[in-house]
Amino acid sequence: MQELPILNPSADARSRLPDATRKIVESYGATSVMNRLNRCALPNKEAIAQFLTDVNEILFPGYRRRDRLNMTNVLYYVGDLVDKLFYSLSVQVSRALCDAPETCDPVKKASLEKRGEEIAMQFIERIPKLREALSKDAEAAYKGDPACKSTDEVVFCYPGFDAVVVYRIARALWELGVPLIPRIMTEIAHSRTGVDIHPGAKIGEYFFIDHGTGVVIGETCEIGNWVKLYQGVTLGALSFPKDDKGELVRGAKRHPTLEDNVVVYANATILGGDVVVGKGATIGSSAWITESIPPGVTVLIEEPKHVTKSRR
Amino acid sequence: MQELPILNPSADARSRLPDATRKIVESYGATSVMNRLNRCALPNKEAIAQFLTDVNEILFPGYRRRDRLNMTNVLYYVGDLVDKLFYSLSVQVSRALCDAPETCDPVKKASLEKRGEEIAMQFIERIPKLREALSKDAEAAYKGDPACKSTDEVVFCYPGFDAVVVYRIARALWELGVPLIPRIMTEIAHSRTGVDIHPGAKIGEYFFIDHGTGVVIGETCEIGNWVKLYQGVTLGALSFPKDDKGELVRGAKRHPTLEDNVVVYANATILGGDVVVGKGATIGSSAWITESIPPGVTVLIEEPKHVTKSRR
Amino acid sequence: MQELPILNPSADARSRLPDATRKIVESYGATSVMNRLNRCALPNKEAIAQFLTDVNEILFPGYRRRDRLNMTNVLYYVGDLVDKLFYSLSVQVSRALCDAPETCDPVKKASLEKRGEEIAMQFIERIPKLREALSKDAEAAYKGDPACKSTDEVVFCYPGFDAVVVYRIARALWELGVPLIPRIMTEIAHSRTGVDIHPGAKIGEYFFIDHGTGVVIGETCEIGNWVKLYQGVTLGALSFPKDDKGELVRGAKRHPTLEDNVVVYANATILGGDVVVGKGATIGSSAWITESIPPGVTVLIEEPKHVTKSRR
Repeated sequence: MQELPILNPSADARSRLPDATRKIVESYGATSVMNRLNRCALPNKEAIAQFLTDVNEILFPGYRRRDRLNMTNVLYYVGDLVDKLFYSLSVQVSRALCDAPETCDPVKKASLEKRGEEIAMQFIERIPKLREALSKDAEAAYKGDPACKSTDEVVFCYPGFDAVVVYRIARALWELGVPLIPRIMTEIAHSRTGVDIHPGAKIGEYFFIDHGTGVVIGETCEIGNWVKLYQGVTLGALSFPKDDKGELVRGAKRHPTLEDNVVVYANATILGGDVVVGKGATIGSSAWITESIPPGVTVLIEEPKHVTKSRR
Repeated sequence: MQELPILNPSADARSRLPDATRKIVESYGATSVMNRLNRCALPNKEAIAQFLTDVNEILFPGYRRRDRLNMTNVLYYVGDLVDKLFYSLSVQVSRALCDAPETCDPVKKASLEKRGEEIAMQFIERIPKLREALSKDAEAAYKGDPACKSTDEVVFCYPGFDAVVVYRIARALWELGVPLIPRIMTEIAHSRTGVDIHPGAKIGEYFFIDHGTGVVIGETCEIGNWVKLYQGVTLGALSFPKDDKGELVRGAKRHPTLEDNVVVYANATILGGDVVVGKGATIGSSAWITESIPPGVTVLIEEPKHVTKSRR
Repeated sequence: MQELPILNPSADARSRLPDATRKIVESYGATSVMNRLNRCALPNKEAIAQFLTDVNEILFPGYRRRDRLNMTNVLYYVGDLVDKLFYSLSVQVSRALCDAPETCDPVKKASLEKRGEEIAMQFIERIPKLREALSKDAEAAYKGDPACKSTDEVVFCYPGFDAVVVYRIARALWELGVPLIPRIMTEIAHSRTGVDIHPGAKIGEYFFIDHGTGVVIGETCEIGNWVKLYQGVTLGALSFPKDDKGELVRGAKRHPTLEDNVVVYANATILGGDVVVGKGATIGSSAWITESIPPGVTVLIEEPKHVTKSRR
């Protein structure tokens, strides 16, 4: 659509380009990080995004790409997608599993491909359970939002639901021991929805996030059933323990636990691995919590004293 | 660009795939929600995204896809787009109007198509008024932000403006009685901008949202002229009334009213359907408001007492 | 994939479309803003998005589009990309430089193209320095987040890193005097990551933003080395000075300064051009700061008094 630029690069430009290119290539060896040359292929981000789109199509047939599906033709449509998914996921998982410092040998490569295939198959066998879990999440969204007109609207529009769909897919792969790919997936959802759920977090049934933008759920959170969060809620860490060498300790529980039926309103912040928000508790908008909350109580911040003055 | 995977799926994998596929298809009948088989086609999300892109091109010719337009050739360019838009919107609206529990009969289908066509035509006839409204919003953005260098920058870059453009398009369809599609539209904008404006909200002229990420404007908000919001502002509900059966009451006014010339700074939260923020009032950053504010006053939170300690 | 609509538009629709189109075209002359007809081409947003993708591929070879690169073939791959980049950036910069009120004459056009070419070349010569700066940012991310498993994960997944990559590219062009394009770039990143960094801000080395959504860094911020921000942090303006005519003063320092080793936790807000957060200071989650903070201290908000009540 755009017209071609008609440029006659000056002799000056023509002579400087090769030199600039050479210096760029030289810079690739200069740092120890951000260097993937001479190594096995990493997972491909676009392939993973495509995988997520295809899984969505399998989970919710008739909602997005393809119209006029019925119980007869859906077998062919979904069968074809499942076949494609199996190959694509096998390849990406086998790539993610490789931790060799250089391109790895054929024997190791074959063994990784076999493991990738087995994991891909196990993932596909979990899809019916995923669908069951997501139908409960859709129900929770409809029951939890008075502006919601139908569960179709949830599937189509709700960014919180979109983020939970991707989280449950990523979580299944995380449980199957796949590195890197689950994080790539949840960050694809984060980019699209503003909701950042780490695949390490454990989340129960009937989970609903309304509006979603700015929600952060850390790696070691534990969340019960029928929990509802609003936009801007952080379930985060209070501080990071360091080891004797001053390096961060990785993996320890740093994020809170929310028991069943907890509701957390907009922009509330709950921090710390020892914090337990008890069953049925409600955390009000903008509250800032660093200690455990007993079951069944409602915690509101005192309305801040306002300084009121007439306008300039 | 990616090399083809050379995989020889094991006999094991080949035998498990058909069984896994069968179980997935069986799961489609197992839940009452998330089931669109044997039903009329839903609106297509990609078609709606394309529609928004095309309306943008009509509203702002010369800014995005097509260069070198002048007052002569623009007629052909826009005429072609309008024609395409009319067909596309007719189809999507007629789909959204169908609420039949099964695939509907030809007579009903023809009647829905006729109504879809009439609504599409009325939308197109509103475009000049949309452009007028949006030129006021662009002016408000330029006048409201000292970092803004030109109104071209507003049209090109400002996510708050982008979200308002989509809101005003979606709102026009909402007023014409179209279900589902307006919400799909505002969620497309939400995904791109972090700004979540429900198409049910009523918003006056010269509206400006700066930075935008995290803004939530609920379904029953009413907003006057020359109102300015910053990132993270929530205009939300305080609590949801339930009916005798314990179900949420849908449709009641739950979100606040902002009169003309109100400014709300970053991360402030204003909750409740009875709350009125009076003409010319200013709400400071991070304030938390659940009661009405009189006209002309500035409300700031008291600077919170800080606990200051030397670093470990 | 979508079936073609079989629509027979009514005679009524066929007669109203031309009239509606004519009124839309008439509306283009009706407002002084949002009018680019009869003018030189603006920069093309899609071309700029493509440019960012290509620069990413040059900065991080082997991570995204292309697999199996080694120190030999990378020269051809990157050389080809650099050549493409040079032409594309030359064209876009020369467009951005044009401020003529009408289509400009051939002499002016040639002069702008020459300047666009020189700027594009200088940008390409800066790429090795960009890579050096970004390897420090990646290191800061890995060292700053206990959930991070490798620097590869940073490059692949971290939205804060993505936003900083785009900021440093945009900043280089800002320093070379390019209008509009740097802002288009940072807003592309804002849309993808929820992080809004103005290219006018000055940011030191080893900069890390975790989670990212909702972060706003204003045009006149100054940030030292080893600074870490969390989601929802605003470094903003307190109020805008106006001139004698009541117009906003543009360009004055309105945003805070953060010295080396400052950490700002989630949803904290720091406002004002005179505010200096001293070396090594820590600002706690949700704090609201409008005055300078001395070096080395930790500022926490007092835990707000909670109103606790039993649930209805």
